[in-house]
Amino acid sequence: MSGLTHVDESGAARMVDVSAKDVGARTARASGRVLLSPEAVAILRAGDVPKGDALGVARIAGIMGAKRTPDLIPLCHPIALHGVKVDLTVVDEGVEIAATVKTADRTGVEMEALTAVSVAALALIDMVKAVDPAAVITGVRVEEKVGGKTGHWTRPHE
Amino acid sequence: MSGLTHVDESGAARMVDVSAKDVGARTARASGRVLLSPEAVAILRAGDVPKGDALGVARIAGIMGAKRTPDLIPLCHPIALHGVKVDLTVVDEGVEIAATVKTADRTGVEMEALTAVSVAALALIDMVKAVDPAAVITGVRVEEKVGGKTGHWTRPHE
Amino acid sequence: MSGLTHVDESGAARMVDVSAKDVGARTARASGRVLLSPEAVAILRAGDVPKGDALGVARIAGIMGAKRTPDLIPLCHPIALHGVKVDLTVVDEGVEIAATVKTADRTGVEMEALTAVSVAALALIDMVKAVDPAAVITGVRVEEKVGGKTGHWTRPHE
Amino acid sequence: MSGLTHVDESGAARMVDVSAKDVGARTARASGRVLLSPEAVAILRAGDVPKGDALGVARIAGIMGAKRTPDLIPLCHPIALHGVKVDLTVVDEGVEIAATVKTADRTGVEMEALTAVSVAALALIDMVKAVDPAAVITGVRVEEKVGGKTGHWTRPHE
Amino acid sequence: MSGLTHVDESGAARMVDVSAKDVGARTARASGRVLLSPEAVAILRAGDVPKGDALGVARIAGIMGAKRTPDLIPLCHPIALHGVKVDLTVVDEGVEIAATVKTADRTGVEMEALTAVSVAALALIDMVKAVDPAAVITGVRVEEKVGGKTGHWTRPHE
Amino acid sequence: MSGLTHVDESGAARMVDVSAKDVGARTARASGRVLLSPEAVAILRAGDVPKGDALGVARIAGIMGAKRTPDLIPLCHPIALHGVKVDLTVVDEGVEIAATVKTADRTGVEMEALTAVSVAALALIDMVKAVDPAAVITGVRVEEKVGGKTGHWTRPHE
Repeated sequence: MSGLTHVDESGAARMVDVSAKDVGARTARASGRVLLSPEAVAILRAGDVPKGDALGVARIAGIMGAKRTPDLIPLCHPIALHGVKVDLTVVDEGVEIAATVKTADRTGVEMEALTAVSVAALALIDMVKAVDPAAVITGVRVEEKVGGKTGHWTRPHE
Repeated sequence: MSGLTHVDESGAARMVDVSAKDVGARTARASGRVLLSPEAVAILRAGDVPKGDALGVARIAGIMGAKRTPDLIPLCHPIALHGVKVDLTVVDEGVEIAATVKTADRTGVEMEALTAVSVAALALIDMVKAVDPAAVITGVRVEEKVGGKTGHWTRPHE
Repeated sequence: MSGLTHVDESGAARMVDVSAKDVGARTARASGRVLLSPEAVAILRAGDVPKGDALGVARIAGIMGAKRTPDLIPLCHPIALHGVKVDLTVVDEGVEIAATVKTADRTGVEMEALTAVSVAALALIDMVKAVDPAAVITGVRVEEKVGGKTGHWTRPHE
Repeated sequence: MSGLTHVDESGAARMVDVSAKDVGARTARASGRVLLSPEAVAILRAGDVPKGDALGVARIAGIMGAKRTPDLIPLCHPIALHGVKVDLTVVDEGVEIAATVKTADRTGVEMEALTAVSVAALALIDMVKAVDPAAVITGVRVEEKVGGKTGHWTRPHE
Repeated sequence: MSGLTHVDESGAARMVDVSAKDVGARTARASGRVLLSPEAVAILRAGDVPKGDALGVARIAGIMGAKRTPDLIPLCHPIALHGVKVDLTVVDEGVEIAATVKTADRTGVEMEALTAVSVAALALIDMVKAVDPAAVITGVRVEEKVGGKTGHWTRPHE
Repeated sequence: MSGLTHVDESGAARMVDVSAKDVGARTARASGRVLLSPEAVAILRAGDVPKGDALGVARIAGIMGAKRTPDLIPLCHPIALHGVKVDLTVVDEGVEIAATVKTADRTGVEMEALTAVSVAALALIDMVKAVDPAAVITGVRVEEKVGGKTGHWTRPHE
């Protein structure tokens, strides 16, 4: 047994059968950050409209990205999403991104939360790449997972 | 002037007009890595079929992800892609991902290369999340950009 | 409180959490019309095959458009659709479009019905734009909504 | 000859062959409006963040909608888009929407401009439908078309 | 009565209302084959990596294709998929493809199974078309259907 | 050298770099058929509206399917399509499908033509499956390819 649930005993990829899993409320939280130059941070922090739109575009991209997860991740199940929230916070080193995704379905939504963070990060880089071509996405990870057979998982302290 | 090319003078987002830009060969290289537990690395390193498929699924996801870039990134131009290559290498800490994207069009393809890396990383996490729920995507960034008005850009040494 | 359910207290957009909403049968009816030149109406009214196909293409586009609603409307929930019906009627001023969408899920389907009407209207214009470049889409609106917490809503007489 | 370019002599739909058409700069402008209740207009006019986000979400939806045009309109050619701009202006009766789309390809972009306006309108309605379930999309139409064999077309005064 | 469930009494296409259908476990199995030249079969049979990847790419394409069914088939309902399995076997005449799709929803999943087989076959042809431009997809058909009002259907012996 | 252009020397899948290929007019013709029961053929042959819509829906699905080719086939390049034509002819054994796709780009369009035929066939089966659950797609193949480095290829007589 390889431990990889998405491949069968012969090693072939499959979308694993979740028919027997319970339908139930599930939540996943993920986070990540985009490291930016001081110049890019200053532009995002400036109190005028562009700031709103740059972060706003990334937020919308993250929410829409969560909905595209089964299109992007080959073996992800297409499931209903009941709520998606993406928060972006400008900090000294760049922008912190947090996403929370909820469902009441047969699979967890950690891939949806990770995808929301990743796509928001990509969209943010697209907004600032003319002033900072060296932006870096870092620390994209699941923080917490509630519901399902594995119950409540919280990222262990490092 | 905010320096953000994707917002106009009033701060509203737009897909910037590239009609006046030259059509020409452009290449972008991006990289990133997925940090994994020793157990997950061992599974990926095991010489049997699942390894092939786990990395293979991520590779395909990355290539297809590059093609979905304008669907995911709100202000990205839909452009032709002439070549996409995604490499995954298992290392002690996890998996290193590198993507190269080529086009001959009016915009650069660094967003496509970053998207290829990000989607490959997400797909890889999806493959191993049952054995390693704490995987982290890190260091997703443009390494090199060739072509276009800005010419040849290489990530500066840190 | 702004009254806008899709933005939180800080004004940030989100896909609102509907976990607590009841699953139940819901129906929405929307309508709209495309104003056309007499020449375009005459072509659509002519008793030969093209008429069938022009209206048929628009009908199919409307049904498929309803399915794409969560891809198009950033904060719409992806939900199951149980039935979609799009009717097009040629009248003296152009074409009247009516759409009915049904589901048994946690959100209403008025956006799906409005999207079906809009996409059918766009597809119809695409079919006739060579003979009538001045076509206008008008009066796209929800007519009736059944089910959900707000119960039965019918458009008030004007 | 029916005059419908998208159907052949037997009436069957087709994506018309544009191989022989010139590649050249083309622009299309379209407009439309969403009629809203005074309450909804007041919320959009209030000087706080939600306003920005409500209009911002619609603007992004319109830009992304333009890119999805060939997915939505069955016989539309998939083409490169060089620029998309969507403007929303709050007026006493609701919101005015204007879209400008540019390309240098073999087909006009009026369908892309109309789709941008329609999807922005739908997204706006989604944002305000909790306070105004009776919103109406009206007057969606091409205003001006530049480039291509038919040259410069401007909507005639009514 | 025409017997075509997807058209109403006037002959117009519609997505049929399945609200009254039971939610229940449903499975569909479909199969098909791609006829290839001996040279292409030999390459696929060679024991090195390309074989793995050629079949692996087709397998992934089939699984992802199953998820795109409602995007491709105009009147198909968008439904949850609980499991998708695609098997490819190299035989003397080419490659045999089998797909199994499971759901617990209101409609059968035979279209999803047929789409999985067809897209896997197309992706396989794309992989080998440089060495065999004459490949043929043949015998794509439902083998078995379990669940739903019609109960258990098995393809009759010919 | 394996002869598989879509895998590199190590066997990894890639979207092959076509930058060096010439842009030029290219056409591909593909065909296929759906084998149906006499009852299903009789319904399609009946002279009333349903027939038109059943074939019309399949035709539209085929045209739209051609546009989705790069979304479905992992290593296909996203390219401009200049024309797509899908013909369906009812014959005694079922329905014959022929598709012609044109472009002026760097890659051939045989995958687009094969996809158009396959998706039209799937959509047709969806229309008739209530009366004929045993329909079979057969003989999907490229008939002719014009343009590109390989020049004019016609399927050899069998």
